[in-house]
Amino acid sequence: MIDRYTLPEMGAIWSLQARFQAMMQVEIQVAIAQAEVGMIPSKAAQDIKKKAKFNVERILELEQTTKHDVIAFVSNMAENVGPSGKFIHYGLTSSDVIDTAVSLQIKEASALVQQKILNLEAALKTQITTHAQTLCAGRTHGMHAEPTTFGMKLAGFLMELKRNKQRFIAAVDQALIGKLSGAVGTYSAQDVQVEKKVCQSLGLKPEDIATQVIPRDRHAELMFALSMLAAGLERLAVELRHLQRTEVGEVSEGFSKGQKGSSAMPHKKNPISSENITGIARLLRGYLVAAHENIALWHERDISHSSVERVILPDAFILVDYALNRMATVMANLDVHTERMLANMNLSSGHLFSSHVLLALIAKGLSREEAYKLVQKHAHQLKPGEHLLASLLQDEDVTSKLTKKQLETIFSGYKHIAQIKKLIPRALK
Amino acid sequence: MIDRYTLPEMGAIWSLQARFQAMMQVEIQVAIAQAEVGMIPSKAAQDIKKKAKFNVERILELEQTTKHDVIAFVSNMAENVGPSGKFIHYGLTSSDVIDTAVSLQIKEASALVQQKILNLEAALKTQITTHAQTLCAGRTHGMHAEPTTFGMKLAGFLMELKRNKQRFIAAVDQALIGKLSGAVGTYSAQDVQVEKKVCQSLGLKPEDIATQVIPRDRHAELMFALSMLAAGLERLAVELRHLQRTEVGEVSEGFSKGQKGSSAMPHKKNPISSENITGIARLLRGYLVAAHENIALWHERDISHSSVERVILPDAFILVDYALNRMATVMANLDVHTERMLANMNLSSGHLFSSHVLLALIAKGLSREEAYKLVQKHAHQLKPGEHLLASLLQDEDVTSKLTKKQLETIFSGYKHIAQIKKLIPRALK
Amino acid sequence: MIDRYTLPEMGAIWSLQARFQAMMQVEIQVAIAQAEVGMIPSKAAQDIKKKAKFNVERILELEQTTKHDVIAFVSNMAENVGPSGKFIHYGLTSSDVIDTAVSLQIKEASALVQQKILNLEAALKTQITTHAQTLCAGRTHGMHAEPTTFGMKLAGFLMELKRNKQRFIAAVDQALIGKLSGAVGTYSAQDVQVEKKVCQSLGLKPEDIATQVIPRDRHAELMFALSMLAAGLERLAVELRHLQRTEVGEVSEGFSKGQKGSSAMPHKKNPISSENITGIARLLRGYLVAAHENIALWHERDISHSSVERVILPDAFILVDYALNRMATVMANLDVHTERMLANMNLSSGHLFSSHVLLALIAKGLSREEAYKLVQKHAHQLKPGEHLLASLLQDEDVTSKLTKKQLETIFSGYKHIAQIKKLIPRALK
Amino acid sequence: MIDRYTLPEMGAIWSLQARFQAMMQVEIQVAIAQAEVGMIPSKAAQDIKKKAKFNVERILELEQTTKHDVIAFVSNMAENVGPSGKFIHYGLTSSDVIDTAVSLQIKEASALVQQKILNLEAALKTQITTHAQTLCAGRTHGMHAEPTTFGMKLAGFLMELKRNKQRFIAAVDQALIGKLSGAVGTYSAQDVQVEKKVCQSLGLKPEDIATQVIPRDRHAELMFALSMLAAGLERLAVELRHLQRTEVGEVSEGFSKGQKGSSAMPHKKNPISSENITGIARLLRGYLVAAHENIALWHERDISHSSVERVILPDAFILVDYALNRMATVMANLDVHTERMLANMNLSSGHLFSSHVLLALIAKGLSREEAYKLVQKHAHQLKPGEHLLASLLQDEDVTSKLTKKQLETIFSGYKHIAQIKKLIPRALK
Repeated sequence: MIDRYTLPEMGAIWSLQARFQAMMQVEIQVAIAQAEVGMIPSKAAQDIKKKAKFNVERILELEQTTKHDVIAFVSNMAENVGPSGKFIHYGLTSSDVIDTAVSLQIKEASALVQQKILNLEAALKTQITTHAQTLCAGRTHGMHAEPTTFGMKLAGFLMELKRNKQRFIAAVDQALIGKLSGAVGTYSAQDVQVEKKVCQSLGLKPEDIATQVIPRDRHAELMFALSMLAAGLERLAVELRHLQRTEVGEVSEGFSKGQKGSSAMPHKKNPISSENITGIARLLRGYLVAAHENIALWHERDISHSSVERVILPDAFILVDYALNRMATVMANLDVHTERMLANMNLSSGHLFSSHVLLALIAKGLSREEAYKLVQKHAHQLKPGEHLLASLLQDEDVTSKLTKKQLETIFSGYKHIAQIKKLIPRALK
Repeated sequence: MIDRYTLPEMGAIWSLQARFQAMMQVEIQVAIAQAEVGMIPSKAAQDIKKKAKFNVERILELEQTTKHDVIAFVSNMAENVGPSGKFIHYGLTSSDVIDTAVSLQIKEASALVQQKILNLEAALKTQITTHAQTLCAGRTHGMHAEPTTFGMKLAGFLMELKRNKQRFIAAVDQALIGKLSGAVGTYSAQDVQVEKKVCQSLGLKPEDIATQVIPRDRHAELMFALSMLAAGLERLAVELRHLQRTEVGEVSEGFSKGQKGSSAMPHKKNPISSENITGIARLLRGYLVAAHENIALWHERDISHSSVERVILPDAFILVDYALNRMATVMANLDVHTERMLANMNLSSGHLFSSHVLLALIAKGLSREEAYKLVQKHAHQLKPGEHLLASLLQDEDVTSKLTKKQLETIFSGYKHIAQIKKLIPRALK
Repeated sequence: MIDRYTLPEMGAIWSLQARFQAMMQVEIQVAIAQAEVGMIPSKAAQDIKKKAKFNVERILELEQTTKHDVIAFVSNMAENVGPSGKFIHYGLTSSDVIDTAVSLQIKEASALVQQKILNLEAALKTQITTHAQTLCAGRTHGMHAEPTTFGMKLAGFLMELKRNKQRFIAAVDQALIGKLSGAVGTYSAQDVQVEKKVCQSLGLKPEDIATQVIPRDRHAELMFALSMLAAGLERLAVELRHLQRTEVGEVSEGFSKGQKGSSAMPHKKNPISSENITGIARLLRGYLVAAHENIALWHERDISHSSVERVILPDAFILVDYALNRMATVMANLDVHTERMLANMNLSSGHLFSSHVLLALIAKGLSREEAYKLVQKHAHQLKPGEHLLASLLQDEDVTSKLTKKQLETIFSGYKHIAQIKKLIPRALK
Repeated sequence: MIDRYTLPEMGAIWSLQARFQAMMQVEIQVAIAQAEVGMIPSKAAQDIKKKAKFNVERILELEQTTKHDVIAFVSNMAENVGPSGKFIHYGLTSSDVIDTAVSLQIKEASALVQQKILNLEAALKTQITTHAQTLCAGRTHGMHAEPTTFGMKLAGFLMELKRNKQRFIAAVDQALIGKLSGAVGTYSAQDVQVEKKVCQSLGLKPEDIATQVIPRDRHAELMFALSMLAAGLERLAVELRHLQRTEVGEVSEGFSKGQKGSSAMPHKKNPISSENITGIARLLRGYLVAAHENIALWHERDISHSSVERVILPDAFILVDYALNRMATVMANLDVHTERMLANMNLSSGHLFSSHVLLALIAKGLSREEAYKLVQKHAHQLKPGEHLLASLLQDEDVTSKLTKKQLETIFSGYKHIAQIKKLIPRALK
């Protein structure tokens, strides 16, 4: 059912066709390099390069007998190449080809993910710029805390996305490895120069010391980086879901013409994209656990990681690609209800400014304990409809320390906006 | 890439076609029940029953506009039913249909899994009976500990499989729930009797108190039971991988004609089925985490669980179905090398019987401390090729307590086999 | 730092003192049973029963040399018993004692957890009864959906708690196992009757087929049940956090005199207990993964599970015990703001009743499509302050089908309350 | 029970005393910086610096009333400082202090972990150098594959450790953040310069855009890096456990005088350190999941991460510190049985060299298919005691292509050693 979340370009990368295509690319480059160092005849390399092709149907048919997909694949290539075909896969073990080919798939898939990250960054930046000074309640524990702006909120998410982009780039970089050192990584049947040449031509780095396989800590880091991208999207999705709830109503996911929110309740406009993305992050966490367990392969390798990776590598890339794309759409089309943001700020009757009253009272000579008790008393005793400012203005213990004007300035939010204007550029640069 | 592991029958259950088929079944039963209680005209129910059909292509087309699959599905059904179509989905919310339909899919999928469990049980029983008295080394910490038999080993796995079968049956039983109580579970637009009737006709139990959905703790238990089945298979797979390693060589996965073990190393016969199954258990653990995170939906539900379940429900069933089937094949065709088992027992030079010497010495009056030191001294000082029995026979501290005959009886393994013959029936019953 | 969450009674069960106490209990019962079947002298059993004691300090000292805690423990016991001490641990392997002793600890710990569950059930029932008819918004996707009552909400949580109680009882039941079958589970040095007698006296069931240890699938099920309890608490905690947020304000965690909500913001009353419990559920999910990985021990056992269980068994019980207790306190002292619940219902301008208008229109002859479009149009076009009922009353397409009185009845919520009154008893029974 | 794994230095870092010490350090530096920028009187900063102290008992007592540990801590500090105490915590929110203080604890803890990594690297390097040319079987799927050397094996683990060291250094680097931007990260009550100065004096970097807290993706990366270290140790531990098993016997964990391997079986020398470490890696994976779930805090923060981090931050550092240390000891004292390694190579009757025969036959003109079938036939038909070289020498199809001398050179392992000598320096540099 992963199909539902598969964008076409990303899906193509993880097709069986693409898998064998990448493997063929490796086999051809190996033949060329081996001819260069004299391991196989030049003619053989030329034949392989020229005539190599494969057919997925035929490979699957051959696999019925061999029970080994790489051998089936090599046999099929050889059928097409003719006599020189025997030099295909020369000195290689299956994992040389599979692991190096997977690196090529990762390379392509990662490029798509990076593009999607940039799209989301762009959408975020637009909203941040637009709403840099859009006052709204900052909330901790789900409760009003102090004023902030919607742009400031999003700036935090942008910074997190940038950190996750860096993590992803670093993870991909260390995962783009070619490995041709043979059955147990000793180059016993391979020339070290061949690995070097092939890696260069494929845009990969050779593995300095391998076992039969590229060590799976590399793939675990990659899965970590994908899971972090999803977790960052989840945090943003949860924010949007909170802001969209009926009682808050500060944003809405755009709603296209003809769209229906519920089969039973015609009024519904639901944050379904954000909810969808929230769920996807859970899937990624599950894959992360599996990728971690894949590390401790036995000796020079066992093949237990393979059944795992056939599922989680495509699925993780597909889901993150999809979720990034969907979030970029949500962000680009987000309806921001600025008037509601202001209205909500008044719901807490001036509570949002209580910390500044506290500091002003301390500055005027009260101890922290005294000032805290004084403000807390007013804040907790407010009746519905009353405002903290009005309550404070009626208390001589307060007004003997702070003038009406000083108190009104505190409650204007001026200071918060002024500060935030200086902070936003930190995110946009 | 889950396709690779999809057995046809199980795959069919989780197809889009089957999903809508189950949903249609629910809608039809609801119409019939609603007619019975007088909520809709009898004629409408008859029309719906007779004419209801759907077309996946058309639904996907309609979903382009509605962005809501259930509404698209209902619209398509209604198109086919004609005027009475307006009574389809009457008083229902989407989750009523989806969740109840998923229960139907779970029911079918679970039946397949249970059959596979029985197949594996049968294969295990055959091997247990055959090898009830096949002596081999029992190992703790990977080291020889005391003698056991291969049948006794497998009996432990059979018992675990039976426990996991019970867990699975219990988990399925509590998951086979129908839920028609509407938008927030209050039956505000539905007759309680309709739910009761529909559940009865579909072989489900109604949810006593629901939210919009069947509570997700039920699905989490189901995923737990599937993961436990996989973890039990993993333990067996790990055992077979250990026993198959070159130095142990006590079993081999059967090797079919034409099969190739390695593209580079023609001699290889590898435990690839067992390794494959080991990896699958990791995937299931990942799904378990995701299923657990699905429980705490917001208020009467949010839809974050949906993107998760569209992946993990099919994938978990498909993988467990596949793994059970593959292990049953491995078990049925397992080559057991009994002579190698005996040969290995001698590798540890009689160590396997040291605990019995210890007990015999204590019985003859030594303190536990004294006896332990005495036996440990002999065990640790053995040179390659020496045997613990021979070493003990040369020590007067030992022979003053135990006669040669007493010692030889201890080292014959007689006592172990006698005991195991009584234990095996516990598993086979 | 788990200390912070350790209630005294539960902490005592998992102390080193209690661990050795349980182990001593096993050793003594074994001696008694072995004397009964004639394996050791009656005098020895009497001495062991009478004189057995241990000292944690001394055991730790002995462990410095032996690097084996059970051997150190047995040596210390033997020191105290005198000559009969050599019959302590006769025919046993360490795991016989450890695993059986852990079962005793689990038994005690589970009794505490069950008591805490009952306390929470009681607190929930009180609130459910009080608020059975307290109308409030039911919410899906965080958006108003249809009316429900606060008692109805809590009834769902009570049902989930009951299900989790059943899961826990079942998991404990299958985990209360005694195992005395020796080094590889063959009773080679033990009489089957001894295990039977000891288990009977300790209130445990014998393991029919063991390896060296009680199979770890049993402990994984236990950890699952603990994690489910935590996940259920998390769902409730998340609900309370939502309802407590400034804009919703429907409940508050009780706030004791002198308590401070924030070091900076004197106005804050935060749902910190619910947030604390939310975090605890995450810890339990982590332990669940580790417990699952513990299942596939090598051969007749390796000891890799031990370092895991020394952490997760105490920590999981301690955390669940703490979280249940804390939630019971929250529930007992919960401030429920019923007036705010009613006020919030009006926030969505009658949207909560849109599904009932839909059904009424269909009943009057509109097709589902027509009715849906009609109601959706009104719902989406409402301006701030407008009410759906008023909007519908102005539309002849509506009023030609439904009278004013019919519409007003729909918007009164009467039907919802009537229904819920019948549902609540399902939970309270 | 984490106590059991707590090395004293690491334990001290995570004590309550150390936690408050770090918090006091932050409060003092804030006061100093605030005096410098003129926010508070210089006299106040001097007093705070001079007189600040705290008492854990007293804080816990105050927390009974405030239910808020930071407020209790600040009150206790203020009690000790006198009148200037009111300027403690000026303009700060609790999380400013807690999060920055935790960064200080992470800094210290990370230094210990890095030292332990270096110790293990040193132990590995010694063994690699010693055993660079110690021939042994390379194994894939647990089966003999091709020859390698023990030094080459360990070189792979060293490389992985180095990669994990880099990951850890990078993770720590991005986690060493100070954050003083107040209630919702807007510096509304704080001077940006204060944060800058304090961070500089504490060796931390300021958070460019924060919420109330340092974003938890940073802590998730840290937990990932710790889990990777554990997973790398697990892979090595699993290798050692395999090599130590009775049938393989190629290494032993050192066994100290007086140590006992089993309470029942005096002969046992078990790989208990490696098994212990294997279990620890499972715990870390569980913590990783929890740390990932901590990321999506609500709005500007909720406090659900706190109960998680109070457990997993100390426990993860304590366990990794312990496991690294224990593995370094294992590695330094490892008994390597080189003669057994050679003996084991002969167990597979020359199979280890089959891939080289394959390549040689292809080089002499056979197709890959023909050569594969020829070698496989000999490999699979060998009877116990027969050697592949002998079998090949009797087959004219082989000897017509390869001379006896050519075949003998292949079976000498000469080529493998020659290659490995060039590879080892890649790891040691």
